[in-house]
Amino acid sequence: MPDKAPWITFRPELRVLDCTIRDGGLINDSQFTDDQLKAIYHAGVAAGLDYMEVGYKNSPQQFPADKYGPTRHCEEEYLRKIVGDHKAQAPALKLVAMADAGGKSDWQRQIIPAKESVLSMIRVACYATQISEAVEMIHHCHEQGYETTLNLMAVSVLQEAEIDTVLQLAAQTPAAAVVVVDSFGNLYREQIDHLVRKYAKAVEGTSKDVGIHAHNNLQLAFANTIEAIILGCNRVDATLMGLGRGAGNCPMELLLGFLRNPKFKLRPILEVIQNTILPMKKQFDWGPSIPYNLTGQMNMHPRTAMSFRAGPTPDDYIAFYDRVMADV
Amino acid sequence: MPDKAPWITFRPELRVLDCTIRDGGLINDSQFTDDQLKAIYHAGVAAGLDYMEVGYKNSPQQFPADKYGPTRHCEEEYLRKIVGDHKAQAPALKLVAMADAGGKSDWQRQIIPAKESVLSMIRVACYATQISEAVEMIHHCHEQGYETTLNLMAVSVLQEAEIDTVLQLAAQTPAAAVVVVDSFGNLYREQIDHLVRKYAKAVEGTSKDVGIHAHNNLQLAFANTIEAIILGCNRVDATLMGLGRGAGNCPMELLLGFLRNPKFKLRPILEVIQNTILPMKKQFDWGPSIPYNLTGQMNMHPRTAMSFRAGPTPDDYIAFYDRVMADV
Repeated sequence: MPDKAPWITFRPELRVLDCTIRDGGLINDSQFTDDQLKAIYHAGVAAGLDYMEVGYKNSPQQFPADKYGPTRHCEEEYLRKIVGDHKAQAPALKLVAMADAGGKSDWQRQIIPAKESVLSMIRVACYATQISEAVEMIHHCHEQGYETTLNLMAVSVLQEAEIDTVLQLAAQTPAAAVVVVDSFGNLYREQIDHLVRKYAKAVEGTSKDVGIHAHNNLQLAFANTIEAIILGCNRVDATLMGLGRGAGNCPMELLLGFLRNPKFKLRPILEVIQNTILPMKKQFDWGPSIPYNLTGQMNMHPRTAMSFRAGPTPDDYIAFYDRVMADV
Repeated sequence: MPDKAPWITFRPELRVLDCTIRDGGLINDSQFTDDQLKAIYHAGVAAGLDYMEVGYKNSPQQFPADKYGPTRHCEEEYLRKIVGDHKAQAPALKLVAMADAGGKSDWQRQIIPAKESVLSMIRVACYATQISEAVEMIHHCHEQGYETTLNLMAVSVLQEAEIDTVLQLAAQTPAAAVVVVDSFGNLYREQIDHLVRKYAKAVEGTSKDVGIHAHNNLQLAFANTIEAIILGCNRVDATLMGLGRGAGNCPMELLLGFLRNPKFKLRPILEVIQNTILPMKKQFDWGPSIPYNLTGQMNMHPRTAMSFRAGPTPDDYIAFYDRVMADV
């Protein structure tokens, strides 16, 4: 007999974040209808999720409202139109926006005090070379009363010393978590292990959590999320039906089926998938397919595959393979 | 820096088996055209695969030829029509058939001496209660000159003592490998670990390999295969584009992208997928979808989900969920 069966119990401190609206917004320029957003929001409340990322705090100059939908900017007035007086009605679900470093957000002006907002957390996303601005952003958001995280993107193309420096700086901020972000969907299990252990070590003694944000290029988003959980990650990202850029994300319906915390309910998730997310499949391409497999295997940004999948021969795998192989 | 990066090297003794024709035959009653079979076969040769399972040695009485295609019976004459004088032309690829215990095969009569056949290996599949017949079958096939394996099916519904008994008997046979078979696509990483370690321990000192055959209900077939490989499994099953019953199998294109043995070639695999397997998607349903997720999570045979997916409302996830939840 095995000594124990950890797969039938649960860890109460593990918190689930739905980033369907934020990451899914990368495939439709955040052009969700109000009804779609409301359906996703209410499903998250009913399912007992801990966090829902409802969009970006993107700069309206760089991401103009005539091209991008309102969840790119997460203006308070618009959010309240969708979620109402959220903190009074459904405080168990914390709402979140992502703010990018590198000039994509106008964070000094866009982020109002948390007590005036339906939002409770700002996740600061940066590339390694943007860490100095990201640290400033974390301090600013913290002072405004938000919980914060640091999401270091594209970690699979960084060197050890770069990651170490970022983590050392992040450890000194008030961020509540540092998140392992496999932007290119490139990492295999042993690499996830290596990174999760590294992140955990870097924040040891600070009470910060480690998080995981996986992409599904190699059909490993869910598996890598499980792996991170086994190693102690307590902040876990997923999206409805894996909706997200390129190959998409860890599917929420698989994650909730795996977690054994009875507070999470699967049925509202299946309902919103069936009624709101599945119909989007007719319009948009996401989820693992061979072009995304290949960019994942080759540790490339998915943009080449996205543009190929949007072209006239999305299933000409050989043409895509020959093209990317010619580039290496 | 990590001590080592095992994900960039390879293990020469790891052998890959393609079971597209055998497992895929469960979704089309093995009604492949000769051209489809030839394309799959030639792709396997060109890709440098080690084994290809070309069908079942099913009893022609129970699986009559007017309903089931010829790869259910793997008659020598038919196989030679597809693969020619295989052992002379492409000896690096060993051809395989599966024989079920429990009366599904007529193994005493159907299995001709290996030296007269294009086949080199017979995989004996059984449920736990059929192990006595399976042991007889292994001996018989071994005496006929075949390499053999024991594939104990539906391991996720067995008790420890049952698995132990099967393994103890299997360890005494001439089988070259015992295979961990997750028929219902139910197992998570820690359960795979537990089983692979148990199988390895049971065959310690016998020179037998441990194998892995994973199903993709939870999008974990590839991940669980990687996990088994990390733990030392040297016999690995996959299928083209995951073609296989229900949620399908570990996708060969992902597996070969992961393995770093330069003898394996990805391009011929992508070519046969694009030209031969992808067109089958118009006719047949396979691959992970929510009904298969749910039977996987609930450790059920996929047949309920297969029949639902073949019905009038394959995407009424809520109806399927309510039905299976009412049954538990």
